[in-house]
Amino acid sequence: MRQLRRMRPASAYIDQSQFDREMAAHFLSGWVGVGRSEDLPETGSFVQRSIAGEKLLLVRGPDQIRAFHNVCRHRGTQLCSQGRGHFVGSIQCSYHAWTWGLDGRLRAAPHFSEDDGFRLEDFPLHSPECAQWGGHLFVNLSKNPAPLEDGLGSVMKKFAPWPMENLRIGHTICYDVAANWKLIIQNYSECLHCPTVHPALARLSHYMTGDNEPATQFYLGGTMKLNDGVKTMTMSGESNRAIFSSLGEYDRRHIYYYALIPNMLLSLHPDYVVSYTLWPKAPNRTEIVCDFQFDPVEMRCPGFSAMDAVEFWDLTNRQDWRVSELSQLGMNSLSYMPGPYSIREGLLAAFDEIMIKALDGV
Amino acid sequence: MRQLRRMRPASAYIDQSQFDREMAAHFLSGWVGVGRSEDLPETGSFVQRSIAGEKLLLVRGPDQIRAFHNVCRHRGTQLCSQGRGHFVGSIQCSYHAWTWGLDGRLRAAPHFSEDDGFRLEDFPLHSPECAQWGGHLFVNLSKNPAPLEDGLGSVMKKFAPWPMENLRIGHTICYDVAANWKLIIQNYSECLHCPTVHPALARLSHYMTGDNEPATQFYLGGTMKLNDGVKTMTMSGESNRAIFSSLGEYDRRHIYYYALIPNMLLSLHPDYVVSYTLWPKAPNRTEIVCDFQFDPVEMRCPGFSAMDAVEFWDLTNRQDWRVSELSQLGMNSLSYMPGPYSIREGLLAAFDEIMIKALDGV
Amino acid sequence: MRQLRRMRPASAYIDQSQFDREMAAHFLSGWVGVGRSEDLPETGSFVQRSIAGEKLLLVRGPDQIRAFHNVCRHRGTQLCSQGRGHFVGSIQCSYHAWTWGLDGRLRAAPHFSEDDGFRLEDFPLHSPECAQWGGHLFVNLSKNPAPLEDGLGSVMKKFAPWPMENLRIGHTICYDVAANWKLIIQNYSECLHCPTVHPALARLSHYMTGDNEPATQFYLGGTMKLNDGVKTMTMSGESNRAIFSSLGEYDRRHIYYYALIPNMLLSLHPDYVVSYTLWPKAPNRTEIVCDFQFDPVEMRCPGFSAMDAVEFWDLTNRQDWRVSELSQLGMNSLSYMPGPYSIREGLLAAFDEIMIKALDGV
Repeated sequence: MRQLRRMRPASAYIDQSQFDREMAAHFLSGWVGVGRSEDLPETGSFVQRSIAGEKLLLVRGPDQIRAFHNVCRHRGTQLCSQGRGHFVGSIQCSYHAWTWGLDGRLRAAPHFSEDDGFRLEDFPLHSPECAQWGGHLFVNLSKNPAPLEDGLGSVMKKFAPWPMENLRIGHTICYDVAANWKLIIQNYSECLHCPTVHPALARLSHYMTGDNEPATQFYLGGTMKLNDGVKTMTMSGESNRAIFSSLGEYDRRHIYYYALIPNMLLSLHPDYVVSYTLWPKAPNRTEIVCDFQFDPVEMRCPGFSAMDAVEFWDLTNRQDWRVSELSQLGMNSLSYMPGPYSIREGLLAAFDEIMIKALDGV
Repeated sequence: MRQLRRMRPASAYIDQSQFDREMAAHFLSGWVGVGRSEDLPETGSFVQRSIAGEKLLLVRGPDQIRAFHNVCRHRGTQLCSQGRGHFVGSIQCSYHAWTWGLDGRLRAAPHFSEDDGFRLEDFPLHSPECAQWGGHLFVNLSKNPAPLEDGLGSVMKKFAPWPMENLRIGHTICYDVAANWKLIIQNYSECLHCPTVHPALARLSHYMTGDNEPATQFYLGGTMKLNDGVKTMTMSGESNRAIFSSLGEYDRRHIYYYALIPNMLLSLHPDYVVSYTLWPKAPNRTEIVCDFQFDPVEMRCPGFSAMDAVEFWDLTNRQDWRVSELSQLGMNSLSYMPGPYSIREGLLAAFDEIMIKALDGV
Repeated sequence: MRQLRRMRPASAYIDQSQFDREMAAHFLSGWVGVGRSEDLPETGSFVQRSIAGEKLLLVRGPDQIRAFHNVCRHRGTQLCSQGRGHFVGSIQCSYHAWTWGLDGRLRAAPHFSEDDGFRLEDFPLHSPECAQWGGHLFVNLSKNPAPLEDGLGSVMKKFAPWPMENLRIGHTICYDVAANWKLIIQNYSECLHCPTVHPALARLSHYMTGDNEPATQFYLGGTMKLNDGVKTMTMSGESNRAIFSSLGEYDRRHIYYYALIPNMLLSLHPDYVVSYTLWPKAPNRTEIVCDFQFDPVEMRCPGFSAMDAVEFWDLTNRQDWRVSELSQLGMNSLSYMPGPYSIREGLLAAFDEIMIKALDGV
C-alpha cells in the first residue's frame, strides 16, 4: 500500500500537550473567526469571546470595532462578566473604578497620581488586532500579525460574488461536540461518508461530484454539484428565496465548503450562507456556533423562513458530530493504528501536513 | 513487633501512576473475567466491556465467541455504542461503511481498491484472546498469552463438583464503589471484620472457622463453615433450593471464597454461585458487577426466587463496600502509616507480595 | 513608576504547584484557625475539620480538647464520617473494632496479642497540637510547633479588652468563593475599593480613615473610624446591643480588621465580633466560614437579634467575594501583567513579601 497515505497517530487527537501546542500555534497567533460584525449593532455594543481561554471583549467604538483583553490593568480583575451587552461611553472596573474609553485609553485611576510616577497613558487596555471580511470578524492575538488578506486573498476573490457583507443572521445554533476540533474539520473536508451518514444530503447532491481546490496553509475547500432539479440545500431541495443575482452559472449549481484555518467553516449556497466558528475546549471537546445568513430583502418578505435551511443542516450537522464523536472515542484505544486514506480523502492528508508543519515552530 | 507483617504504603492505593502500572500488569495482560457466556445467547449476540479503558466487543460467531477491539481500522471510529445487542451477520462502521464478518475479517471497504495496493486481508478487526471456564468468560489483551488453565488449573479441579457451566444468572447487581480495587479484594480475603461489620453473616457462620489455601499468583481463597442448622447463606439460613447433588460432604457445609487475580471473585455455596467482576475506574473507584447463578431446573420450579440469596449478599456487600471506602478515604492522610496485619490477615500479606512482584516487570 | 510596588505574577494565584507549596508552608505547618471551642460543648463532643486535605477530629476529652487524625492505625480506615457529633467514651473503628479513649490511647485491638509483639501503647491516634485563644481554636500540624503566643502575643494583648472568650456564636454563614485564598486576604486588607464596591459600608465609615499597623509574618491589620452618629456596623449604623464595657474610647469608635496568617480574619466591633476561617480547596477556590459572636447576656435579652450585623456583613462579604472572583478570573489571561499598588494598598505589598518569604524554605 505504498500509494495510500495514513491517518495521524492518536496522540494528535487525544493528548493535552498536543492540544496546548495547537492552541498556541493557531488560536493564540492566527486569525480566528469570532462572529459577525452585526453582533455589534451600535457604538458601545460588545460581545465577549473566549479564544483558547483568553477572554476578549469585542467593542464597537464610534470609529471602529476593537478587541480588548477583559482584564483590568490594576489588579487583574475581569472587567465584564456578560456575554454581550452595551458599554455607555466607557469601560469601568468594578473593583477600584479604573475607567477606560471605548478606544481602550485609561481615563481615570483613583488614588494613583503623577506624583508617584503614575501615568494614565501607560495603562491602556491590551488590544489585539481585529479585522473584517464580508461581515465576518476575525481577531489575531499575536503581535504585529500579517494582514488577514495575506492568507485569505484568493478566497476573498473567489467568494466576491456572494453579497456576504450585506447578509444578516436569520438563525443561530450552538453545538457542544465531544470530538477534537481537527476531526470536525476533517469530517467537513470529505464526502466519502455522505452515502452512509447523510441520506437526506445524498438526495440533493451526489458525493462523487465533489471537487477540491488544492489546500493552502490558510484554508482548504471544494465544491459539490446540486442534482438536476435541486435548487439549494434544504430538506426538499426547494426554496422560496431568490438566488443571489450576482452569482454566475457555476456558482448557482454548486455548494462551496471551505475551512478557514483554524476555526471557521464557510458553506456558500446559491441563496444563503452558513458560517461555523469552532471553539476547542479540550482535546476531546469543541463548541461550535453555526450562523445562517440571508439576504435582508428576502428576510423582510412575507412568508420568509430560515427553517428549511436550518432543519436540513441541523440534521446533517448532528450526523457529522455523531461520527466525529465516535472517531474521538475509538482513537483512545491502544489498538488504534493509523488507517489508510482513500483517494477521496486527499484534503485530509493535506490538512494533516499543514497541522504538522504549523507545530514545528511552537 | 517483628512477627507481624505491615500494610503497604498509601501510594499503592491512591497514586494514579501506580494504578496505571497495575492496569498494564494485570488488566491489559492477564486473564480478565468479563461475564458469562450466557450473556451471548445466539449467533450475532454481543456485549461490550471496557477493560482499563479498552472498549471490547464480545461477539458470538457461528463457531465461537470472539473478542474484538471496538475500533474501525480505517479512521479509528468506534464501531458500536451499545452495551449489548445483536449484529445481523456482520459489523459495519457507521462512518464510511467498512464491514467485517462476525469472524473479524474485513469484507468491504468502499473506494479502496487493490489498484492502490489495498488488501482486505490486511485490516481484520483486532481480536484479543478469549477463553471460557464453567460458563465464565475471560479475555486476555496480551499477545500470545499462556492458557487460562495454566494459572487456574487447580481451582478448576477443586470446583469441578459445582455444575457452574449449567447454571444461569437469576439476578445481577451493579455497584459503584469509591475504593481501590485491591482494597475490595483484601476485604474479601479476611473475615476478621465479620463480627463488627456483618452481624447477619455472623449468625450463619463463625468467623474463626475460616480456613485459607496458600495463595498463588493467580488466585487466593479459603472457606468458612456453615453453623449447624444453617443450610446456605440467606437471611434465614434456609433455602427451598436443592443442594447441588454433585457436592461431597465437606462442600455442602462450607462456603468457598476465591479471588481470581485480577478481577473476579467467586463465592460458591451449596445451592448457588455468586461471581463478581471488578472494573477499576480510578485509584479510588471500582465498579463491581455481581451475578447470582442458580440451577436452571430450580429456576423453573414454582416458587423459585433468587431474592433470599440476593438480599443477604446485597446487605453484606454494601457493608463491605462501606468499610473499603472508609479505608480508601483514610489512606489519603499524611498521617497514615502502614499498620500491622494480624495472624488472621495472612492472605492480605500474601496478596501484597503478589501485587508487588507483578509490578516488577512493568 | 519607581515608587509604586507591583502585584505578583499570575502564577501565585493560579498554579497548582504554588498552591501545594502554600498548603505545606502555611496550613500543614502553621497555626490554623479551626473554629470556636463552644463548637464542642461537652465531653465527647467532636467536630471534623479538613486542613489542606487532612481530616482532623477535634474532640473534647474530660480534661482538654485534642485534635486527632481521622485514621485508624490498623488498616488506615477513616474513623468517622460525620461533620460533628458525640463520642460516648471512646472512638471505635467500624472495620475491625480497634478502640481508643478520648485521650487518643489505644484500648483494644481484637486478635492482636502481646505474644506477637503487639503493644497497645504503640498505636495511639496521631494527635497534632491544639491551642486556644479568646475561645478560638487553632491546630498546628507540624511537629513541636512554637507556641501560638509567639506569633500572636501582641495581637492578644491589643485585643484583650474584648471579652472574646465569653462571647457566643449567634449566627454562622458558609461561603464557597471561586478565588484564591490570598486574594480574599488582600481584599480584606485594603479599603480603596470601598467606595466602588461597598456603598452601604461607605455610609458608616469613610475609607480614608483607615489606619494600618505594620505587618508581621503572623498577622496584618488595621482600623477604620466609625462616622459620627454611627454606633456600629449594621445596615442602619444603630444597634440595641450594649457596647462592650471593657472597651476604651478609641476602641468604641473604630473597627479592627485583622488577618491572622494563614486562615483567620478577625473583625472586632464595639458590640460584636466576626471571625472568618478560610479553607483553601484549590488555587481558585476557597470555602469561608463566618461566625458572628455576641455577649451571651445580650443574647438572652428579649428583642435580641444578630440579623442587623449579619445582614450588613453578608451583603458586604458577597460584594467582596464577587470582586475577588473577578480578579481570579482575570489573572488567567495571558495578557495579565502585574499592575501597580497605590499608596493605599501598602498592606498588600507587605503580605506579598510575607508569602514569598514563607515559601523559601518549602
